[in-house]
Amino acid sequence: MKRILTLLATSLAVAASLQAQELANFSFGRGAKPIISPEIQNDSVTFRLKADYATIVKLSGSWMPNPYGDTIDMVRGENNVWEVKIPLPAPEIYTYNFVVDGVAVNDPQNVLVQRDGTRYLPMLMVPGERTENYGEAKTHGTVSHPWYNSKILGFARRLSVYTPYGYENNPKKKYPVLYLLHGAGGDEEAWISMGRAAQILDNLIEKGLAEPMIVVMPNGNPGQQAARTLNIPEKQIDWRSEEFRDAYVKSLCTEIVPFIEKNFRAIAKPESRAIAGLSMGGGHTISASILYPELFDYICPLSAAGSATPEQLATLKKAGVKLYFLACGSADFLFQGAEEMHAKLNDQNFTHEYFVSEGGHTWANWRLYLNTFARKLFK
Amino acid sequence: MKRILTLLATSLAVAASLQAQELANFSFGRGAKPIISPEIQNDSVTFRLKADYATIVKLSGSWMPNPYGDTIDMVRGENNVWEVKIPLPAPEIYTYNFVVDGVAVNDPQNVLVQRDGTRYLPMLMVPGERTENYGEAKTHGTVSHPWYNSKILGFARRLSVYTPYGYENNPKKKYPVLYLLHGAGGDEEAWISMGRAAQILDNLIEKGLAEPMIVVMPNGNPGQQAARTLNIPEKQIDWRSEEFRDAYVKSLCTEIVPFIEKNFRAIAKPESRAIAGLSMGGGHTISASILYPELFDYICPLSAAGSATPEQLATLKKAGVKLYFLACGSADFLFQGAEEMHAKLNDQNFTHEYFVSEGGHTWANWRLYLNTFARKLFK
Repeated sequence: MKRILTLLATSLAVAASLQAQELANFSFGRGAKPIISPEIQNDSVTFRLKADYATIVKLSGSWMPNPYGDTIDMVRGENNVWEVKIPLPAPEIYTYNFVVDGVAVNDPQNVLVQRDGTRYLPMLMVPGERTENYGEAKTHGTVSHPWYNSKILGFARRLSVYTPYGYENNPKKKYPVLYLLHGAGGDEEAWISMGRAAQILDNLIEKGLAEPMIVVMPNGNPGQQAARTLNIPEKQIDWRSEEFRDAYVKSLCTEIVPFIEKNFRAIAKPESRAIAGLSMGGGHTISASILYPELFDYICPLSAAGSATPEQLATLKKAGVKLYFLACGSADFLFQGAEEMHAKLNDQNFTHEYFVSEGGHTWANWRLYLNTFARKLFK
Repeated sequence: MKRILTLLATSLAVAASLQAQELANFSFGRGAKPIISPEIQNDSVTFRLKADYATIVKLSGSWMPNPYGDTIDMVRGENNVWEVKIPLPAPEIYTYNFVVDGVAVNDPQNVLVQRDGTRYLPMLMVPGERTENYGEAKTHGTVSHPWYNSKILGFARRLSVYTPYGYENNPKKKYPVLYLLHGAGGDEEAWISMGRAAQILDNLIEKGLAEPMIVVMPNGNPGQQAARTLNIPEKQIDWRSEEFRDAYVKSLCTEIVPFIEKNFRAIAKPESRAIAGLSMGGGHTISASILYPELFDYICPLSAAGSATPEQLATLKKAGVKLYFLACGSADFLFQGAEEMHAKLNDQNFTHEYFVSEGGHTWANWRLYLNTFARKLFK
């Protein structure tokens, strides 16, 4: 094998058409000093980018006061490696990018990337108590991507499903299920990529802080078959029209839930079903709880774009709810809606938890909410 | 729901901190002409990038004679949208990027992205006979990512596993298994992302051209736990040392194969096991066939970095092989090795197929090979 690798390495070095990445695992270029970016050192983090012909290079990051406007200038150094060293932001997962002569550029040195919609963004995780469940645990659940056939929406659609560590080795055990919904800009991979849902559940379950559970992450945009393909059916459908009003929520509750309960070892009872969602998915969460009040005993609208009438809440309360976890950031543009929902729940004497965090409509908050309410489910 | 979406849309428009992508699914900015890139029209394709302050913008693409050196200049147009129109390349899947003042930049308009190692590259699929099995089929298998515990390598490791359409609905049916290995720059997601393995199998099985099969894609770099995290165990191991020589191949054959046959409905017989791999994975394929000659009846080294002695081939021939599919591009830097292997197989009167394609050490060839040999397995 050693001989083979040596042969490969030698051949690779002279292969003009070879993709540079193929070399990543060999120890070429020992003479050249590798560029490290980002580099965390004590209380600072340094970003570096080699840009030979650039005029202005800046850094943009989600920790900045205005993450989509603010930038910091980088300085050209030896060998045209541009650099900036900044104080380490508070523990959290951030995304960032460089701006080279006005155009967004990813960090070619950073192997950790998150996908947010169509954008792939380099990720910076600052260690600390806030992020202790966001990194890799010792034990891992399985993430799978089955497709369910939706008669309501008219085509097959891709799901993400997390089964907890131990699922394969306990073939008779059945598990409760959390249905975890994304926002309008996301898809069935959003909670996996931006939300770190698999890592959060791995860590919480490993530490005994959460019940082992299945987590189902559907695609909540009814015109999409699957992440990144954006297949829209040939027939142009106005998904906001009366005919298709609530079509996705109906598909979730009458197609996806039965699909999961048939194909996974799920406990098919209200007390073993939870639903949670952010932004548009918080609206879907509220709609599902109203349209199917008997289905879920755990209901968690997060930074939700949605509301309910007193009558609907009274019906839901009567159906029985074990946890109603309403969460929102105090700087969220939807905060007023959360305040109103909280007041309506109080008016009904509807037992609920109202979790208000700092900050706005951000994945930092949604990870925090999952890391919080997942511990309260199925107990 | 309509009311909620209207509320959301209005609120979104004034939320300064909101990520632009969150707006993608709403119909904002009707006045602004959207930038389309890439745009295929008859025999041409046009690429566009808005770059306000750039001095030079170029296009680099994998269809160019020297894909990692050649570029084409783009021209600044109205509103600083740079553009270039080129003749449509031959049907194939290509990757490309822009080069803005010397720095590689992705296409923010293109939702289709392939990951090649640490790089995320915009994808261009040119339709035609060559690519007819590379797009989405009507029916879809399930891709899952279970972890197996490797005692040989010392830690848990992530796999990609494809189960064919119908697997869930035929709970008593057992399936043959293809072990499909990547090259030195790849990981357990390489065949899924660059190789379009799920799409190729979906299409072939849907058309009745291939047997329904399970496809297992492990991570062939023994120091890696999983794609993109690059966890190296704290103890620094020289994986090329005598002690760890063939450690990965041993883990594949004595840990991964039993793991799959325990946790999936796999037929545990040599005639229902195939192994194929590209480049370094071709070396792994050859090593596995030599070290465990009884294990696989279908053996497919692709652009392989590996070889075998006449004695080893004689032993393998005696053990029984239903298909030996040796493939390489005539411009591949490893082509001479394939020629020698072909000669050695001939010397042994070892029945085999020698598939020589145009081109070099490229994913274009590896997709073609999978699209070819998958039809010959388990028949």
